[in-house]
This record gives sequence, structure tokens and C-alpha cells, in this order.
Amino acid sequence: MIDLYSWTTPNGRKVSIALEEMGIDYEPHAIDIGKGQQFTPEFLAISPNNKIPAIVERETGFHLMESGAILLWLSEKCGKFMPDDRWQAMEWLMWQMGGFGPMLGQAHHFLRYNPEKSDYASERYGNEARRLYRVLDRHLQGRDFMVGDYSIVDMATWPWASRFEWQQIDLTEFPNVCDWYLRIADRPAVQRGYDVPKFVNPIPRP
Amino acid sequence: MIDLYSWTTPNGRKVSIALEEMGIDYEPHAIDIGKGQQFTPEFLAISPNNKIPAIVERETGFHLMESGAILLWLSEKCGKFMPDDRWQAMEWLMWQMGGFGPMLGQAHHFLRYNPEKSDYASERYGNEARRLYRVLDRHLQGRDFMVGDYSIVDMATWPWASRFEWQQIDLTEFPNVCDWYLRIADRPAVQRGYDVPKFVNPIPRP
Repeated sequence: MIDLYSWTTPNGRKVSIALEEMGIDYEPHAIDIGKGQQFTPEFLAISPNNKIPAIVERETGFHLMESGAILLWLSEKCGKFMPDDRWQAMEWLMWQMGGFGPMLGQAHHFLRYNPEKSDYASERYGNEARRLYRVLDRHLQGRDFMVGDYSIVDMATWPWASRFEWQQIDLTEFPNVCDWYLRIADRPAVQRGYDVPKFVNPIPRP
Repeated sequence: MIDLYSWTTPNGRKVSIALEEMGIDYEPHAIDIGKGQQFTPEFLAISPNNKIPAIVERETGFHLMESGAILLWLSEKCGKFMPDDRWQAMEWLMWQMGGFGPMLGQAHHFLRYNPEKSDYASERYGNEARRLYRVLDRHLQGRDFMVGDYSIVDMATWPWASRFEWQQIDLTEFPNVCDWYLRIADRPAVQRGYDVPKFVNPIPRP
């Protein structure tokens, strides 16, 4: 049994979607970052960076932070969703963790939450978001999924793409991304995982 | 023989330091990002995100982008510098890839290169840099290295800390980080790797 500490954000949804896809028993625990619940000593003990998601394996006490590490661990545990080309998977997982995530998060900050704070920063992160979507669109040319079959690499990347509206991205300008996005949005496990730890909105569709 | 495509940046130095530590034969190729050399079709073929570093194994043609993936691959190839606690290594490597890297890069942009563009953004990324150093300092309490013995996790993190001046960080305010930083700065392989693909400055010391 996995205890999942999470919230309704892209990084949180990566892990709930993976747990649903893998059919692993888990209990979600909402860490409301709007109320600062990530700063309690109890949460810090399992997530030294004070960020969701984090997991605890109830039987062993094993705990892990950082969504990319959690996806790798879950995939190894269940023996599924790791591409045969493990190193191509690793480079694209790292691409998501280092770019298509942190930089889109800055776009959310400056385009959606604080659009009045800095025109310069809004433009900077809007441009970087579009650059990252171009990279993904080029990569998905001729591919159904990011690396081989549907895998943890897609599970890591898709939840960030599902905030395309916040990023002021018109998905139809990136046709390969758009097809990939809808292909994944139609998966029942993705739909269930998207609503963990609680329902906020239906999955956005372009 | 590894062909290393790199530049004198933290992400580039991660890999040259690792190659030096591991004693792997390699030939560095300078990709001058100031001249836009990362945008050539030749480089795009091995680095679809147009970023350094990237490597090619000359004998096989195997290529890989993203410094975090390259460090994992090199460590597996040589059988060294991967901590026994592989999952704790993975979570801290992901922490570097997703935070102590992308966010410090934004601090470089707004504190050093474009300090006049946005006071709001300068303050935002200066604060985030200090938060990340606090997380690292707390983690290094009672530890000589980030996870067990000196490993690829330190190799990933140290080059970003070596830009503490750009981040307006006084390392002496973070005593555990400072000790760790100097412990690694004294390693001959780190000193050699720091100067790849060319010498820019001596390793900064607090």
C-alpha cells in the first residue's frame, strides 16, 4: 500500500496517474499547498524540499520525493511502463524534469497568476513554453508516444501539457502534441488519476 | 571513446567532471552557445532540445542528451559513483535537475545578466536560490556528501553551487554547503573538468 501525499498540480498528477495505470493500491493524502501544508515537520521528514508529491510504502516505511524518481521507482516495482530503450526514456524524462516542468511553472506564475508583475518575464516564459512545445512536437513526429509504447515518460509530460491554457498555448498549432495529448486524455486511468486528490475541473480539451 | 559536446556552463561541467573522475577517454568539442552553435542541424541530431551537454560513444554511435541522463549512463558504464542507496540518489539527482539548476539559471538571468529588467523577478529568483541552498544545507548536516560517498549526485549539484557569486549567495551563510563545496573543489579531477572545454576562471572560493 502506497501513501501518496499530493495536490492537484501537474507534478502531483504524474504520480496519481501512474498509480492508476499500474493498478497499485494507494491512499491519497491531500497536501493543500494553498494552505502551506507542505511546511509541516511531518511532511518535511519525507520531502526535504517541502514539495509534493511524495510517497511512503506503508509496509516498509520507504519514502521518496521528486516525481521523476517516484515514477522510476513505481515502474521498477511493477515491471511496466519503462520503455525498452531505457536511455532514451531517461533523457526525455530528464528533459521533462529540467525543462517541460520548471519553465512551464514560471509561465504559470507570470502569465496566469501575476501577469501584471513583469512584461519582460511574461514574454520570456511564454517564449520558452512555445520553444518547449516545438521541441516536443518535432520529437513526436511519426511517434504515438514519446519513447516506444506509452510509458512513464508520457505520464511525466502529459500533466504539464494539460495546463496548455495557463501557458497561453494553442495546442492545435502543435499537431503532433495535440494528437498525443488527446490519445492520453482518453485513457480511463488518466481520467481517474487527474481527479486525485480531488476533482477540480474536467480534463481540458483543445 | 566519448565525444563530449559541451560549453563552460554548470550543466556542461557536470559531465566533464564526471568523465575526469571516472577516467574515461573523451574528446571535448566546444559548442559556443554565445555564437548559437547549439542550433546547427548536426547538433540537433544528437540533442533534440538544442542544449549542451550531449555525448556520442564513438564506437557505437550511441548518443544521449540531458546531463542527468548522461551522468547515470556514465556511472553505469564504469560501475562507479552510484550510491548504494540508489533511490535516495535518484531523488536528489531529480531535485538538482528540477530545482537546483533551472531555478538557479533564472537567478543568473535576472541577477547577473539582466538586473534592470524586473525587480520582481530578481527578488523571486534570489529568494528561490536561498531557499534551495537552505534545503541543501539542512540535508548536508552530518554528511560529507549528498548521498553516501562522493557520487554523481554531487557531480550534478556542485557545478551549480560554483556559481554562488552570480546567485548573490554568501556560501559562508550555509556552513554545511560551504564545507561540502570546498571538499569537492579540492579534487584534482574536478579542477580538470572545470576547465573543459576551455579555461575561463579559477574555481571560485568563498
